[in-house]
Formats: sequence, structure tokens, C-alpha cells
Amino acid sequence: GKSRGPKYGQIIDAAVEVIAENGFHQAQVSKIAKKAKVADGTIYLYFKNKEDILISVFREKMGLFVSCIEEAMGDKETVEDKLLALIETYFKNLSENYHWAIVTQLELRQTDKRLRGKIGEILKDLLILLDTIIDEGKLQGVFKQEMDKRIARQMIFGTIDETVTTWVMKDRKYDLVSLAAPIHHLLLSGLLKD
Amino acid sequence: GKSRGPKYGQIIDAAVEVIAENGFHQAQVSKIAKKAKVADGTIYLYFKNKEDILISVFREKMGLFVSCIEEAMGDKETVEDKLLALIETYFKNLSENYHWAIVTQLELRQTDKRLRGKIGEILKDLLILLDTIIDEGKLQGVFKQEMDKRIARQMIFGTIDETVTTWVMKDRKYDLVSLAAPIHHLLLSGLLKD
Ligand SMILES: CCCCCCCCCCCCCCCCCC(=O)SCCNC(=O)CCNC(=O)[C@H](O)C(C)(C)COP(=O)(O)OP(=O)(O)OC[C@H]1O[C@@H](n2cnc3c(N)ncnc32)[C@H](O)[C@@H]1OP(=O)(O)O
Ligand SMILES: CCCCCCCCCCCCCCCCCC(=O)SCCNC(=O)CCNC(=O)[C@H](O)C(C)(C)COP(=O)(O)OP(=O)(O)OC[C@H]1O[C@@H](n2cnc3c(N)ncnc32)[C@H](O)[C@@H]1OP(=O)(O)O
Repeated sequence: GKSRGPKYGQIIDAAVEVIAENGFHQAQVSKIAKKAKVADGTIYLYFKNKEDILISVFREKMGLFVSCIEEAMGDKETVEDKLLALIETYFKNLSENYHWAIVTQLELRQTDKRLRGKIGEILKDLLILLDTIIDEGKLQGVFKQEMDKRIARQMIFGTIDETVTTWVMKDRKYDLVSLAAPIHHLLLSGLLKD
Repeated sequence: GKSRGPKYGQIIDAAVEVIAENGFHQAQVSKIAKKAKVADGTIYLYFKNKEDILISVFREKMGLFVSCIEEAMGDKETVEDKLLALIETYFKNLSENYHWAIVTQLELRQTDKRLRGKIGEILKDLLILLDTIIDEGKLQGVFKQEMDKRIARQMIFGTIDETVTTWVMKDRKYDLVSLAAPIHHLLLSGLLKD
């Protein structure tokens, strides 16, 4: 998006809905304009094209998402509790905003490599949060000293992400938030019996 | 695919290459025919359409992939060693068949829900292998008794899958197979210091 203005937020919210309901490829700018109750031309004041809308929406919502997780982590004493707060807040946000979940788990898995690169750059804001937890856990001597940060991050994010994708593919048949505690336990202590 | 014949294998192999190099959406049947050195019409003797080719290719290769993992697991005594054999064979196959990796990590992430459903059904053959390891580990009292099989499976598969996707997105800059041992260790005993 080029710059902000009163209608920016309206367009962003309409875009999430239209993309979630129609899929990115069928989400014409005119559909988004209609849902946002603005003229088609207004959209082009803020966004270059449909791809720019997708990326801007993701960047915007990722900012909110990361702030929300940081806030939940803020008052936790231990690194274990911070990780639990992260997973719980992650699941809670996607449960409460199912349109976000459809967009992140299905529509943002674009095959176009350039677009994927842009999505990856925004995803980094979330992965950096995981890195801070891993660093802190190692520094405090709570986490394994020898473990590779990238591998640990890929395990945590991969587990969360696969759990959310399965939940979306299963049409929210079960409660996602209640999976946070058992996943947290498995990530901390692994498959082996304690 | 409807039935087998001498040219079936040729078409399958050509399809993997064409899809990996051009992306599924740009992989016209005529391109696949040319690469397979068959007439366009020959393809339609075996496959209904491009989507049928994608699904058939995935089913065919998944069969080989799963057999290869089962063979590697076969001579392992402990459930821990079986899990290591699975991860190592998984990474080895995708390292040696980079076209497969591009197709599985990028092109099979289709947003079309019906197509995703079909892909999920084939993926089950791989997930069932994980389930047998989890069941065996629980039965032998090596793995946590109380853990949910689906959550454990989503952790193992999610970790492997995210690791492979990052490696593909990073254009194979580093060795994937050497990540098997540290990932195996993390999955078994978690983030916490032993
Ligand atoms: C050129 C080609 C080259 C090919 C090479 C091939 C070889 C290489 C292969 C390696 C790479 C493979 C990567 C493949 C990538 C493509 C697909 C992806 O995107 S993967 C990445 C994205 N991931 C995906 O796309 C996978 C998405 N997942 C799925 O679609 C499904 O899980 C499933 C179809 C896989 C299995 O489903 P199902 O048969 O149903 O079995 P379940 O046990 O899961 O469920 C049993 C019941 O439990 C419920 N339940 C489940 N979990 C939980 C829970 N945690 N808490 C509570 N409940 C839970 C569930 O609702 C169900 O209840 P109900 O419905 O019966 O009432
Ligand atoms: C409507 C919208 C609603 C939106 C709501 C938003 C809020 C909700 C958000 C929650 C859901 C988020 C889901 C987002 C889903 C979209 C994206 C996906 O598909 S996600 C699922 C699919 N996943 C993806 O798409 C993620 C794919 N990953 C990536 O693209 C990148 O990892 C990165 C861009 C994320 C970070 O990259 P980078 O900044 O480079 O940082 P690194 O530390 O990784 O790397 C540092 C160096 O280490 C090398 N290295 C790395 N690992 C290893 C290793 N294990 N061993 C050895 N070496 C390794 C690496 O080569 C690099 O070397 P060099 O290159 O500097 O020489």
C-alpha cells in the first residue's frame, strides 16, 4: 500500500473477507471495492494491484498479530510460560478470525516464487519472536545449549502451522485453543517418556 | 490415471519435470507430451486432465517414497532408530530428487479445496507410517503414554515439512540430510535441557 487514509482500513478488512471467501485468484479488485463500499478507483489510490493488496493485508495483520503475542508474553516470568502464551495467543487469534486462518493457511501458500519471497519477509516478524524465546531459553540454561536456533524455530513454527492447517482442512471440527497446552508440553519435552 | 501401459511411466516422469520447472498452472498438457515424447492425445488415454496428472503423479511417487522409508525402517531394532531412518530417508529422497521437492513443497500447496482434499488423502499414506511409529513407541513404553497421536504426528510431520520448505525456499544452500540427526534429537527430547 502506498500511503494511509480513512478508507485504507476499510479496504484491508474487505480484502481479507473477499480473499477468504473467493480465494485469491477469484478476488477481483472490483469485488473488494464493492465489499469495502468504495469506488474501484479508490483502491488504486492505495494499492498498485491485487498482489499489493494481499501483501499489504498480510503485513498489516501480522503487525497486529505479533503485538498481540508480545503483549501476552510480556507478563510471563519463565521462558516456558512465554512459549505457552505465544501458542495460545496464536491459536486464539486464528480461532476468532477464521477469515485470517483461511488466508494464512491456504491463500498465502502461493507458488509464485517472487510473491513467496515477499510473504517470507513478513513471516520473519513472527519467526523473530520465536528466536527471542529460543535465545532466552538457552541463555538461562533452560533449553538445550547445543541446539541450532533455526532447527528449533522450524520445529516450533512447523508444529503450530501444521496443527492450524489440519484444523482448517477439517473445517474447525474441534477446538484449536485447547491444543495449545499439549503441543507446548510435547515441544518442551519431546516424544520420549519423562 | 485410468490404466497402465508402456508410456504411463514416461508421462509421469515428464510431468514431474514440467510441473517443477514451469509451475502447475503453466504446465500445459502439450508441454508434458513434448517432454515425454508422446502425442498430446496419448496423454488423454491415461489421464482425464492436468489435475488428474498431478494427482496420479503424486500417488505414484508417494507409493515409491513410502516403500523406500518402510525398507529403511525394516531392519531397525528400536522405535527411536525407526524414526531416524524415516527422517533420513525422507530428506535423502527429496535431496536426490529436487524436482519432487519443488512439486511437494510448492506446487502441491493448492488453494482449491477439492484438489487439496485429494492431496490430503494421498498424504495419509505417509502419515500412517508416522502413526505406526507413535503407536509402537507408546506400546513399548518408550514414548509418553498420555500423548495424543494426532498432535504427535502433526509435530513430527510439521517439523519435517517446514524444514524441507525452508530448504527449498533457500535454494538448497545447505545440506538437508545432515539435519536429520539434530531434528530427530529435538523431536525425541524437546527443547528443554536433558
Ligand atoms: C512430483 C511429485 C513428487 C511427489 C513425491 C512424493 C513423495 C514425497 C512426499 C513427501 C512430502 C509430502 C508433502 C506433501 C505436501 C502436500 C500436502 C500439504 O500441503 S502438507 C502441509 C499441509 N498439511 C495438510 O494439508 C494436511 C491437512 N490434514 C488433513 O487434510 C487430514 O489430517 C488428513 C486427510 C491428512 C487425515 O485426516 P483423517 O483421515 O481424518 O485422519 P486424522 O487422524 O487426522 O483425524 C481423525 C479425526 O480426528 C480429528 N482431529 C485431527 N487432528 C486433531 C487434533 N489435533 N485434535 C482433535 N481432533 C483432531 C479429525 O477432525 C478427525 O475427525 P473426523 O473428521 O473423523 O470427525
Ligand atoms: C488476511 C491475512 C490475515 C493475516 C493474518 C496474519 C496473522 C497470522 C499469522 C500466523 C500465520 C502465519 C502463516 C503464514 C503463512 C504464509 C507463509 C507460509 O507458507 S509458511 C509455511 C512454509 N514456510 C515458509 O514459507 C518459510 C520458508 N522460509 C523462508 O523463506 C526463510 O526461512 C525466511 C525468509 C522466513 C527467513 O530467512 P532468513 O532471513 O535468511 O533467516 P534464517 O535464520 O532462516 O536463515 C539464516 C541463514 O541460515 C540458513 N539456514 C536456514 N535454515 C537452516 C538450517 N536448518 N540449517 C542450516 N542452515 C540454515 C539460511 O540459508 C540462511 O543463510 P543465508 O541465506 O543467509 O546464506
